[in-house]
Amino acid sequence: MIDFLALVNNRQSDRKYLDTPVEEEKLRRCLEAARLAPSACNSQPWKFIVVNDAGLRDSLAGLTTSGRLLPLNHFTRQAPVLVVLVMEQPNLTSRFGEAVKNKKYTLMDVGIAASHFCLQAASDGLGTCMIGWFDEPGVSKLLNIPSGKRPMLIIALGYPAGKKRQKKRKDPDRIVSYNTY
Amino acid sequence: MIDFLALVNNRQSDRKYLDTPVEEEKLRRCLEAARLAPSACNSQPWKFIVVNDAGLRDSLAGLTTSGRLLPLNHFTRQAPVLVVLVMEQPNLTSRFGEAVKNKKYTLMDVGIAASHFCLQAASDGLGTCMIGWFDEPGVSKLLNIPSGKRPMLIIALGYPAGKKRQKKRKDPDRIVSYNTY
Repeated sequence: MIDFLALVNNRQSDRKYLDTPVEEEKLRRCLEAARLAPSACNSQPWKFIVVNDAGLRDSLAGLTTSGRLLPLNHFTRQAPVLVVLVMEQPNLTSRFGEAVKNKKYTLMDVGIAASHFCLQAASDGLGTCMIGWFDEPGVSKLLNIPSGKRPMLIIALGYPAGKKRQKKRKDPDRIVSYNTY
Repeated sequence: MIDFLALVNNRQSDRKYLDTPVEEEKLRRCLEAARLAPSACNSQPWKFIVVNDAGLRDSLAGLTTSGRLLPLNHFTRQAPVLVVLVMEQPNLTSRFGEAVKNKKYTLMDVGIAASHFCLQAASDGLGTCMIGWFDEPGVSKLLNIPSGKRPMLIIALGYPAGKKRQKKRKDPDRIVSYNTY
């Protein structure tokens, strides 16, 4: 079996990219890994908009930077591909569950699909960064996303230019317990 | 590099388990893969309660089955381990983002961590099923989860007894577009 833990250790949020295009085949594999992700009631409540047109990608990148408020996400201008993850209406079973249990399964589903995308990228030597902070109405307008559907994440994709960092995570003792909280 | 797509194809939601214990080392690797998952602002808003005490696990399984309403999740009684994923309060940066952008990053984070857990299990020959439908107040009481913290998912873990199924997913054309919705 493959060593998934090594892949997990290798994946990081990359915020510097080389000026190298992403091969269509590698992009396709990332999308395929995301497509095969599990979701509540197999609802698959997601759509991926691949933005690789240079002008459009620049406009989209501009909507992630919050220029006036915070110096955020300027690396999105370097990434050759930006992928917008739109949360779709789930199927009836999942919607019923969400209503009864007051729990937004769809958002967890979006996270799962995004993680599949990024792990596949890492396994093909690509870098990614999931971005949740952007001008949502602006993105919807730029990409003609129908009203009522929300772009939840933007994934930057490209060949990373930065170094591998040591991961900073909470100690296992703080996040794992046995048989009681 | 490892073939992540093969692992994704291999992972499935298993609803039949063998009466075989899960090795402590394999469980630890699943938890480690989840611990290293990315999250908004590296907030890591999660805690994992491993339920492997036989009596407690039976009680917890009973809270997932919705016996009176729907014949759901009865396989949880077979799984030797159930892991409850509690959503924790995110850090200040992530909370600020959630408030400004009206977007529950924390829920996506929980989905990402759960997917890491399940993929690691698959890479070690184990089966999993993420369960979002359960008696949440009952689970909180059983496991002494503080009020204000929500158990969002329960992951069943064990050696699968069922066959591999063909995945049913939407066609790529339905979920992928380029440069516009």
